[in-house]
Amino acid sequence: MPIKAVVWGENVHEQTNAAVRDLYPLTMHGTIAAALNQDKGIEATTATLQEPEHGLSEKRLAATDVLLWWGHAAHGEVKDEIVERVQKRVWEGMGLIVLHSGHYSKIFKRLMGTPCSLKWREAGERERVWAINRGHPIAQGIGECLEIGETEMYGEPFAVPEPMETVFVSWYEGGEVFRSGLTYQRGAGRIFYFSPGHETYPIYHNEGVQQVLRNAVHWARNPAPAWSGITNAPNVPTDKAKEKIVQKGLRLHADGDKGLS
Amino acid sequence: MPIKAVVWGENVHEQTNAAVRDLYPLTMHGTIAAALNQDKGIEATTATLQEPEHGLSEKRLAATDVLLWWGHAAHGEVKDEIVERVQKRVWEGMGLIVLHSGHYSKIFKRLMGTPCSLKWREAGERERVWAINRGHPIAQGIGECLEIGETEMYGEPFAVPEPMETVFVSWYEGGEVFRSGLTYQRGAGRIFYFSPGHETYPIYHNEGVQQVLRNAVHWARNPAPAWSGITNAPNVPTDKAKEKIVQKGLRLHADGDKGLS
Amino acid sequence: MPIKAVVWGENVHEQTNAAVRDLYPLTMHGTIAAALNQDKGIEATTATLQEPEHGLSEKRLAATDVLLWWGHAAHGEVKDEIVERVQKRVWEGMGLIVLHSGHYSKIFKRLMGTPCSLKWREAGERERVWAINRGHPIAQGIGECLEIGETEMYGEPFAVPEPMETVFVSWYEGGEVFRSGLTYQRGAGRIFYFSPGHETYPIYHNEGVQQVLRNAVHWARNPAPAWSGITNAPNVPTDKAKEKIVQKGLRLHADGDKGLS
Amino acid sequence: MPIKAVVWGENVHEQTNAAVRDLYPLTMHGTIAAALNQDKGIEATTATLQEPEHGLSEKRLAATDVLLWWGHAAHGEVKDEIVERVQKRVWEGMGLIVLHSGHYSKIFKRLMGTPCSLKWREAGERERVWAINRGHPIAQGIGECLEIGETEMYGEPFAVPEPMETVFVSWYEGGEVFRSGLTYQRGAGRIFYFSPGHETYPIYHNEGVQQVLRNAVHWARNPAPAWSGITNAPNVPTDKAKEKIVQKGLRLHADGDKGLS
Repeated sequence: MPIKAVVWGENVHEQTNAAVRDLYPLTMHGTIAAALNQDKGIEATTATLQEPEHGLSEKRLAATDVLLWWGHAAHGEVKDEIVERVQKRVWEGMGLIVLHSGHYSKIFKRLMGTPCSLKWREAGERERVWAINRGHPIAQGIGECLEIGETEMYGEPFAVPEPMETVFVSWYEGGEVFRSGLTYQRGAGRIFYFSPGHETYPIYHNEGVQQVLRNAVHWARNPAPAWSGITNAPNVPTDKAKEKIVQKGLRLHADGDKGLS
Repeated sequence: MPIKAVVWGENVHEQTNAAVRDLYPLTMHGTIAAALNQDKGIEATTATLQEPEHGLSEKRLAATDVLLWWGHAAHGEVKDEIVERVQKRVWEGMGLIVLHSGHYSKIFKRLMGTPCSLKWREAGERERVWAINRGHPIAQGIGECLEIGETEMYGEPFAVPEPMETVFVSWYEGGEVFRSGLTYQRGAGRIFYFSPGHETYPIYHNEGVQQVLRNAVHWARNPAPAWSGITNAPNVPTDKAKEKIVQKGLRLHADGDKGLS
Repeated sequence: MPIKAVVWGENVHEQTNAAVRDLYPLTMHGTIAAALNQDKGIEATTATLQEPEHGLSEKRLAATDVLLWWGHAAHGEVKDEIVERVQKRVWEGMGLIVLHSGHYSKIFKRLMGTPCSLKWREAGERERVWAINRGHPIAQGIGECLEIGETEMYGEPFAVPEPMETVFVSWYEGGEVFRSGLTYQRGAGRIFYFSPGHETYPIYHNEGVQQVLRNAVHWARNPAPAWSGITNAPNVPTDKAKEKIVQKGLRLHADGDKGLS
Repeated sequence: MPIKAVVWGENVHEQTNAAVRDLYPLTMHGTIAAALNQDKGIEATTATLQEPEHGLSEKRLAATDVLLWWGHAAHGEVKDEIVERVQKRVWEGMGLIVLHSGHYSKIFKRLMGTPCSLKWREAGERERVWAINRGHPIAQGIGECLEIGETEMYGEPFAVPEPMETVFVSWYEGGEVFRSGLTYQRGAGRIFYFSPGHETYPIYHNEGVQQVLRNAVHWARNPAPAWSGITNAPNVPTDKAKEKIVQKGLRLHADGDKGLS
């Protein structure tokens, strides 16, 4: 059964900026979804900010294996309620791939617990994305590095937690470096941040970038059943303990209390 | 110069529950502060939920090296504005020690990005806190394990990210285990979660537990200057690049724009 | 195509101890291979210390996706040359699953770089293996914990590096704890250490233990092509640099030197 | 009491290459020791390959808090016995700082368990060492980056395990990147790898590089008592278990056996 991927786009610059529209006539999220669908093992659709519930209903998220997130101009317009819903699905096991300026999205900042800040420059300079974890599933098929002719520079320090794995590190013509591919796990959900991508450059038309995204969808998918109770803090009553124990000492809670924690 | 530690307590059960008051006549936060002050290298004071700004003004936090956090019954009463202030100080370099039921505090959940859920049982059973990272500064002076005669069981799965280091793992009479001492780093701030502790047991009078807390204050302190710009995402103009580069391609931003990210 | 797994056994106690032979008439490695072969996606065979090259020729290792390692009485008899060969294959991408007393095998100690020491007791006590990373592929299908009626206790501190992931933590009747399921990555190879298992207990007949091993084989397999050059340190000549640069300064090496590093 | 640091140098090129001798009239290890001794909190001495026991007797290592390691041309001449001795002291808590071409030293490869390979080029190009973990103790006092005018390029992939922390990432004029400052913990010992440094460039005269090395000595020192039993695997007899248990089942070992593991 193919992996169900949803490419979420805020869909703002595609509507308001002619240059972006010319570069991405299918929109950016549409372009990415088409690239994913070249892989028979992936079934990708799109969702946007402007749809009801931003296109991310409970039902749709429950049927999504991996969500890709593009946002830039409208992070603040994403409703907190939907962000919390997405976060819960990640904890339950849905994969999440955060793209470029999505470093400042509500969902990424909530999952990281850090500012997710960085330096930037829009000069159309050259970027070289080095695969430093050469045997990683996400780095397959692209050789030792990806060359991107015109890019937006994203520079360190990138204020994120230490990753589970550093897959890519980027070199920039202007002299900076950036950890451009990082993996995390939060609850049962796998997260991949990938920095290349920008509205005014043809980066999502780049074959190597598309390959990375297809690889990442496969990597991020957790086939285990959803960990549905992950937000609960259940009480284990004394008479249900694995080992026989005797109730002792003072208590805050009476039998059957729901408990504070 | 001694380390400035602030022990924050929600101060609820101490006021409403006679058993807790009997056990902790100094309050829990007061008891912990007194234990820290036995170390000449630490200068500990207290703050509580009921004070203006919960006792955590900008000025006071700026002068705090390490904050210890006790909360249980009133997590929801802590104002979001103060939580955000504390989180920012952690990113800048303030150490944070989260105690027992603080696993469900707003500040810990925000820094972890996960549910921080667990299982629990209040049966007064025996807990043995094993030092598994024997050479770690936090584990010094307590031998191979701490014995706690009466404890609240906290059981796995503990829904937190993989830690930087697992310092302690606990065994419970009723058959469960728990990663009872975990370290994290978020921005420039070091975080230590320590699970032993409960209102109705004399755990914070335990000499070994007090030693762990003193050790943790020393470990959590980052003597570096505060990383004050950590939440900023500065633009590096093309003519300020470290290497000489030439502006190319399309741009979203005009010169001097503040930028979206 | 099924995953090619090889279960390596030192095959000593099966030959010298009647009790072990009665418990494992197929030998331990044979029992484990049979358990793996219940999964159509795995094709498991065995190899032993007594075979030429310990059954691990270059050719066989090159065709192996995942190696499982059982050793206890004869770690010292494993030839260094074969250990180095196995280590290189792990770096290139072969998965490795280290079983129980294999913590003290040459291959595990070399890959970890630490003593891999622990405490132990052979009292036939009860062990409860808690799945603490509940959404992990290796923990699927076994519920919240495995109960093992009679076990050898392995106790912390377990002198290994911080793992990539802690999947299982064990509770013992006698009062100890142990991180019983740990993952690592070394080069392109994934490593899983799993502590349950002992010659004189029927642990490898336990259905849950067998499920964990099948899961682990799937997890440890890296389908990427072997990273065959991982031990090389190639020179990149100045005229082959990605960016045009000019040779400057003094040099230790003349053009075409093989180099010291 | 000052930290006892020993700077170990293989002392080969200083004796055989006039250019190196001109650049480092004090030798490289002597230059580094002098830089460390500018800090009143450090007391640095040197040791070399040519001394008896390579200058690293049991007694001297026992009195050493932090060892710095420079080797390049003569890794193979370092005796295995001494390497094992150093490794044991690291496990017990001695800090280790591995310099530049020390990536291929026996001691570093043993502690990492990986090939520690990389790419290299000796073109005297420019290197920019970015502090990406800005609040880390090792990165204090050097600003956002170090500029090194002439360097040997070390390029990814660097075949080491995922580090505890990535402190520095380097940019090279020729187009490569490298994780130039990495931390690890093995047993009770802290390890820092720092790539800048080469015989034919004045890198160890660079004020910023010297500051990093002084910082690293402070960071790497573990003041805890040596973990002297870390290589032992003690038996815990049934009648000494923390909880009362009854001997059950078959056994491999008789009472008082030393045990296999």
